[in-house]
Amino acid sequence: MRHILAFIAVAAISLAAGAQQALFEPASLHSPLVNADHTVTFSYYAPKADSVSVDGDFMPAGQTLAMTRDSLGVWRATTAPLAPELYSYRLVVDGVHTLDPANVYQIRDVSTVFNIFMTGGGPDGLYAVNDVPHGTVSRMWYDSPTLGTTRRLTIYTPAGYEQSGDRRYPVLYLLHGMGGDEEAWIALGRTAQILDNLIARGEAEPMIVVMTNGNVDQRAACGESPEGMVKPDFRHPHTMDGTFETAFPDVVAFVDKTLRTHADKSHRAIAGLSMGGFHSCQISKEYPDMFGYIGLFSAAVNRGTADSPVYHDFDTKLARLFTGKPALYYIAIGRDDFLYDENVDYRRRLDTAGYPYVYRESDGGHTWRNWRAYLADFAPRLFK
Amino acid sequence: MRHILAFIAVAAISLAAGAQQALFEPASLHSPLVNADHTVTFSYYAPKADSVSVDGDFMPAGQTLAMTRDSLGVWRATTAPLAPELYSYRLVVDGVHTLDPANVYQIRDVSTVFNIFMTGGGPDGLYAVNDVPHGTVSRMWYDSPTLGTTRRLTIYTPAGYEQSGDRRYPVLYLLHGMGGDEEAWIALGRTAQILDNLIARGEAEPMIVVMTNGNVDQRAACGESPEGMVKPDFRHPHTMDGTFETAFPDVVAFVDKTLRTHADKSHRAIAGLSMGGFHSCQISKEYPDMFGYIGLFSAAVNRGTADSPVYHDFDTKLARLFTGKPALYYIAIGRDDFLYDENVDYRRRLDTAGYPYVYRESDGGHTWRNWRAYLADFAPRLFK
Repeated sequence: MRHILAFIAVAAISLAAGAQQALFEPASLHSPLVNADHTVTFSYYAPKADSVSVDGDFMPAGQTLAMTRDSLGVWRATTAPLAPELYSYRLVVDGVHTLDPANVYQIRDVSTVFNIFMTGGGPDGLYAVNDVPHGTVSRMWYDSPTLGTTRRLTIYTPAGYEQSGDRRYPVLYLLHGMGGDEEAWIALGRTAQILDNLIARGEAEPMIVVMTNGNVDQRAACGESPEGMVKPDFRHPHTMDGTFETAFPDVVAFVDKTLRTHADKSHRAIAGLSMGGFHSCQISKEYPDMFGYIGLFSAAVNRGTADSPVYHDFDTKLARLFTGKPALYYIAIGRDDFLYDENVDYRRRLDTAGYPYVYRESDGGHTWRNWRAYLADFAPRLFK
Repeated sequence: MRHILAFIAVAAISLAAGAQQALFEPASLHSPLVNADHTVTFSYYAPKADSVSVDGDFMPAGQTLAMTRDSLGVWRATTAPLAPELYSYRLVVDGVHTLDPANVYQIRDVSTVFNIFMTGGGPDGLYAVNDVPHGTVSRMWYDSPTLGTTRRLTIYTPAGYEQSGDRRYPVLYLLHGMGGDEEAWIALGRTAQILDNLIARGEAEPMIVVMTNGNVDQRAACGESPEGMVKPDFRHPHTMDGTFETAFPDVVAFVDKTLRTHADKSHRAIAGLSMGGFHSCQISKEYPDMFGYIGLFSAAVNRGTADSPVYHDFDTKLARLFTGKPALYYIAIGRDDFLYDENVDYRRRLDTAGYPYVYRESDGGHTWRNWRAYLADFAPRLFK
């Protein structure tokens, strides 16, 4: 042990002189701290700042949590007790948004990086890494002959996949919203944790989850393609012009060829949020024999332009889909979602035609908090 | 197209009222910008700050790059021309280290998050995602009977692995240093990019790379285990007490059972940096029939405590390893590394015993810049 301590000491001294000094700075603040009473305390050292506050999604819209400075220059603030959830925040230092340097946990949402923390493992503990068998998460490239390029997927295979010989699994295709990419569901959506936990509890069937990139101008998430470390952008061309939908069978063909799937409609689901809900709506009716389970989360429902044949004859194609009796057509939306009225209209359309669906209405709006909850509600309904 | 623009407009208006407002803020600064003359310009908006500078590893040790404020409150600075490399930096705002909010590219090193950028694709273009076939990167859990738990691995399988039927591959086991985990080599080390590029050029054999977690008190990187989102710590118990080395055959057994490997010494390599170099040194001599290729990068060489039988009889065990004639024993270190003298001693020991090895000495010290270069130099020497 003497030798090890000496090694650490030498490392600290030597590196302190160089660029890696930051690694060895005195143990700094712990922030945030989740307290026993479910309040959360933030700490930030900034002796020269005039004002610091926390801009977090646990606060009412438009409000930040003011921090108070102590005599050493450390700013602190404590929230009210918080319900179990995955929360995101940034600090506002003299009017400028900045990250909490004491918190290494961060998630990128489009072009903004947020700090995150979790209380209570999220709703029902499903968002936490618990002591259960864990699936494998892979980033894999597939060939899209339709788009003439290779593209990146995020793939979850359930615990035991590698050890289960010839066993085949059903597949859920999970689609992101505008500005997202193949990293969105696995990071912000906690897909691996939700599936690990639901499967371990026996509440969901072991399934493969394939998370696509719906921006056909991108081969992969920013920084993961030959474009290099470009600044992510909210807008992409060709996201809702029929191109992605037309090329989607390439993904399914690759997955069925590469993974041990049950390659039929009764073992395939497709679901997505916002733009991904739009894509799921379009793809499912475009290929009525492909998916037996369809989920529209806060979906932009039917917003296709008239430019693509994909968006022609919607009613006829939807009738064809429902003639095939999908096992589940699921719609979920929050009461405050800006797409709420549009979903009311769409449900009315389904009602009028007599098409069965499951509907879940939640509090809140167009947020990941809702989309995680919808996934946790949707996945147990699949492949049973 | 009209519909899509209307959708974006509605999204922007609706969300601006809520917690996701930040996603839709007016396009902010682009920082850093790599200029045509290989200089790099940083920009940061902080109208109330008194001083801002860039603390980057492209600067001489102990120096930061001062930024200058314009009349709108934007601070800017431009570097001298930079050699191709992956660089890291943080901003220093009124004495406090902070991240550049315009740059979403970040890497955690132990408990500190840095912004990163790359010029010229790194040495010889090997660190960039180029337009070549890409391997798969997986996070997979293995069972360690010796440690009595499951643990997390990062695994790279080369392009074509999924499509190559029964083809078997050689395996490189790649070990991190103190404070690192199974995310270190794939993030800071650019392992996937280096291997993709070397294999595409025909300079390295297609191989599997297995990146372990050498902290036996951890089941996975921080945030990825049931411990939750704890603050990462530089020190871990049991990192250099023989436990990891004793349990290492569990990793090899899992990999040989789970992946299509050539399960023999002539198709197995082990290499590591700093503490991982120490582990590679110990493991290779402890199991002399396991690895035909051994790499010690800036290694802490022979620092085992006397507490473990793993560290007894080093010379005898090393003799047994060299009796088996490993195909490659590779040592690399920088002239400024605090472990340099220790490596001189170790090489003298090998020389005295007449054990053959390949030695590479570089500029610089105990840095990822060197470890990436060593991997790029080491991998082409394997399995040929």
